[in-house]
Amino acid sequence: MIDHKFNFKKASELLKPVIRNTTLIKSDYFSDISNNNVYIKPENLQMTGSFKIRGAYNKISKLNEDEKNRGIITASAGNHAQGVSFSAKTQNIEAIICMPEQTPMIKVDGTLKYGAKVRLQGSNFDQTNEYAMNLSKTQGYTYIPPYDDYDVIEGQGTIAFEILKENPEIDYILVPVGGGGLISGVALCAKEINPKIKIIGVEPKNAASMQKSVKCNKIIKLDSTDTIADGTAVAKVGEKTFEICKDYVDGWISITEDELLESFIELIEKHKLVSEPSGLLSIAAVKKLDFFNKNICCIISGGNIDMSFVSQLIDKGLFVSNRIHTFRLEISNTPGSLEKLLSIFAQTKANIMSIYHDLWGEASRYKNIFVEITAEINGSDHLQKIIEKLQKEGYKID
Amino acid sequence: MIDHKFNFKKASELLKPVIRNTTLIKSDYFSDISNNNVYIKPENLQMTGSFKIRGAYNKISKLNEDEKNRGIITASAGNHAQGVSFSAKTQNIEAIICMPEQTPMIKVDGTLKYGAKVRLQGSNFDQTNEYAMNLSKTQGYTYIPPYDDYDVIEGQGTIAFEILKENPEIDYILVPVGGGGLISGVALCAKEINPKIKIIGVEPKNAASMQKSVKCNKIIKLDSTDTIADGTAVAKVGEKTFEICKDYVDGWISITEDELLESFIELIEKHKLVSEPSGLLSIAAVKKLDFFNKNICCIISGGNIDMSFVSQLIDKGLFVSNRIHTFRLEISNTPGSLEKLLSIFAQTKANIMSIYHDLWGEASRYKNIFVEITAEINGSDHLQKIIEKLQKEGYKID
Repeated sequence: MIDHKFNFKKASELLKPVIRNTTLIKSDYFSDISNNNVYIKPENLQMTGSFKIRGAYNKISKLNEDEKNRGIITASAGNHAQGVSFSAKTQNIEAIICMPEQTPMIKVDGTLKYGAKVRLQGSNFDQTNEYAMNLSKTQGYTYIPPYDDYDVIEGQGTIAFEILKENPEIDYILVPVGGGGLISGVALCAKEINPKIKIIGVEPKNAASMQKSVKCNKIIKLDSTDTIADGTAVAKVGEKTFEICKDYVDGWISITEDELLESFIELIEKHKLVSEPSGLLSIAAVKKLDFFNKNICCIISGGNIDMSFVSQLIDKGLFVSNRIHTFRLEISNTPGSLEKLLSIFAQTKANIMSIYHDLWGEASRYKNIFVEITAEINGSDHLQKIIEKLQKEGYKID
Repeated sequence: MIDHKFNFKKASELLKPVIRNTTLIKSDYFSDISNNNVYIKPENLQMTGSFKIRGAYNKISKLNEDEKNRGIITASAGNHAQGVSFSAKTQNIEAIICMPEQTPMIKVDGTLKYGAKVRLQGSNFDQTNEYAMNLSKTQGYTYIPPYDDYDVIEGQGTIAFEILKENPEIDYILVPVGGGGLISGVALCAKEINPKIKIIGVEPKNAASMQKSVKCNKIIKLDSTDTIADGTAVAKVGEKTFEICKDYVDGWISITEDELLESFIELIEKHKLVSEPSGLLSIAAVKKLDFFNKNICCIISGGNIDMSFVSQLIDKGLFVSNRIHTFRLEISNTPGSLEKLLSIFAQTKANIMSIYHDLWGEASRYKNIFVEITAEINGSDHLQKIIEKLQKEGYKID
C-alpha cells in the first residue's frame, strides 16, 4: 500500500555527524510504577531540542541541486522551525520560516539565530501555512512539510534504528503522536528490524486526531485541540502518516492534561530532565499499560518550552500531585484567631507559602472572615491528616 | 605528602555495574560564550541524582566484614545521604542516616525509600553530625565521612577517569567545590592520566572556604555560608582535601548568586537539564575564564532540588536575566489612564503577566496612583526600548 522504498540505515549514517547520540536512560522509578523495564530515549537532549532535526535534515539532504539553490520555506513556530533552520544552515541553503504574527519574540529569535529568515504572517497556523505554500509556488522556494512526507518520515525513523541498536531486547516503543511523522517512521523502521515489536501511539486526550481517524478508518478533522501539549495539538493528521499508522501501529493511549502535569514533575524530580508537554505523552502512558515484565522504550520527543511556562507547569503540577494545597478556611475576626489556625499547620509540618486574609470575603456568619492558606505538603496522605486535624479543631473546610 | 595509594582504575571497575554512564554533552551554547570547546559531564543524571554515590559506594565496599556487619551511619540531609543509603542497600548493609530535625519530609522520604533508617536529631548540621559520630562510638556503627576520606576521594576521582577515557583531549576540568572531596579525587586521577591537565575549583562567592584556606595556607573556618548552593555551603573544608587542593588545583573561581540564577535558566533552556545550584558552579565559571580555544569539561555535580525551589529559581532567574521585569509607574486616578498605559505595553510587545493597581500607595501628586506591571520581555535591549517609549509618553519610572 505504501509506494515508497525506505532506507533507515542509510538515513542514520547520513544523520550521524549532525545529530547527538541520545543514549537510553533506564528509569528505575517508571519501571517500578509500571512493572515493566522502562527506558527513556531522550530526544529533548537532541540538537535543536527535539527529534525534528532528523526528518528536516534527511529531507533537505535529498533535495536536488536546483531545489536547494531556490532556497527552502516552511511554516512553524515550533520544533520543525528549528530543525529546518539548523539543517539549512548546516547545508548552506537559504531558509525562510513563516510564523504566525503573534509568535513570541523568544521563538522568533531562536529561529533567527540559526540564520534563517523569519516572516511573521497570518493570525493562526493555517493562514501562516497557506502563506508559506503560496510563496513556495510564486517565488519557487522548496516547501519542507512538517510530517506528511516520506523523506521526513524516514528521518524520524532513525530513532528506532538507534534504540534497537543500543537495546535489541526492546518489546514496545511508546511514541507521542501529533501529525504522525515520528510514529510512522518509528513503526516502519522498528518492524523492519524486529517484526514482533509493538508500537503504541500516545496522544493528548483533547487532541486524539490520529486514534479517532484510525478508529473511523478515515481522516477526521477535530473541531478543537485544547491541550498544553501544543506540539501534538494537530486537528487533522497527514494522509501518508494515516495510512502507515492504520497498518503499523499496534495500540493507542490518550493522556489527560493533569496526567501530563504529573509526569512533568516526575521527569524533573526523578531524572532531572525537562520535557515539553508533548514529549511527556509516552512517559505518562507507562501508568496505563495492561501488561508487565516487558522492555519498554518511551520516546521523549522534545524539550523546547518557554521558561515562564516551565515554572507555571511546576506550580500547577505540584497542586495536582497534592504537593501544594490551598486551604480556604473561615475564622473569627478577632485577635489571635489567625495565630491559632497557623499553629495547626506548624504541628502537622505543612510549610506555609502564602496567606490571603480577606476582610471583604463572604463568610457564613457575621464577623467571620475567610483566610486562604497555601502550603507545601507531602502528598495525599499528608493532606488527609491535615484536613482531619483541622476538622477536629472545629474548622469548616471549603 | 599524601600517605595513600589511590587506584582509580580499580575503583572505576568496581563502580561500573552500579552507576550510570553519564556521557559527555558538547555544549555549542557555552562554547560560543567562552570561546572554548565546552563539554558537560552530567552527574545530575547519575543514580541517586549526584556524584556522591561514587565515593560512598567505594568507601562502603572497602569496609571489612566486621565493619559491614556493625552497620553504617552518617549525617546528611543531602546528596551524601542518598549515596550512602543506595550503596548500603545494594550491598545489604544496615544504614542509619542522621538528619537535622527540621529536614523537609520529602528529603526524609527520599532517603527512607532506599531502605535506610532515618534519625531526626539536632537543630543544625554540626549537632546532627556530632550525634552521628557519638552513636558510631557508643553503638559501634561505622561512620561514613562525606568528603574527608581517601576511599571517598578515590570514588569521586572515577569521574575524571571516565571523562578522559571518553575525551583524552580535555585540557581543563572545572569542578564545584564544597568540602573538597570531588575536586581532590578529580585532580589526583586526572593528573595521573595526563600531568598537563589543569584543574579549576569553583565555589560560591559567599562560601569560598577552600580558596580562602589555600590562599592563607591553612584551613580557615568561615563565619557564614549564605548561598542558594546549599550542597557546597561548607564553612570548614576537610584536612585531607585541603592538602590535596593546595598541591593539585591550578586555579580558583568564585560565583555570585545572580550568576548561579542565570546559569540555572541557561542550562534548562539550552540543554533541558535541571541542576541543583551547587552543580551549576562549573557552568557559571565558563564565562569567567581568561583563556580560549581549549577543551573544557564542566562537572555538573548533582540535580537534587525541591520542585518548588525549581520554580522559584526560574522566576528569580528570569528577573535577573531581564526576561521578566516589574515596572512601577504612576498614573492619574481617572478612567482610561490604565488603558492608555497598557497600550504602550502592547505596542512594544511586552506580554503582561500581572497588574497590581494600588489605590492606597503613595504617589507624588494628589489623585495620582501607583501601578505595578510585571511583564515578560526579551532581554536588556527590549527593556531599554520599553523604558524609552514610556518616558517619551511622559511616564515617570520608579
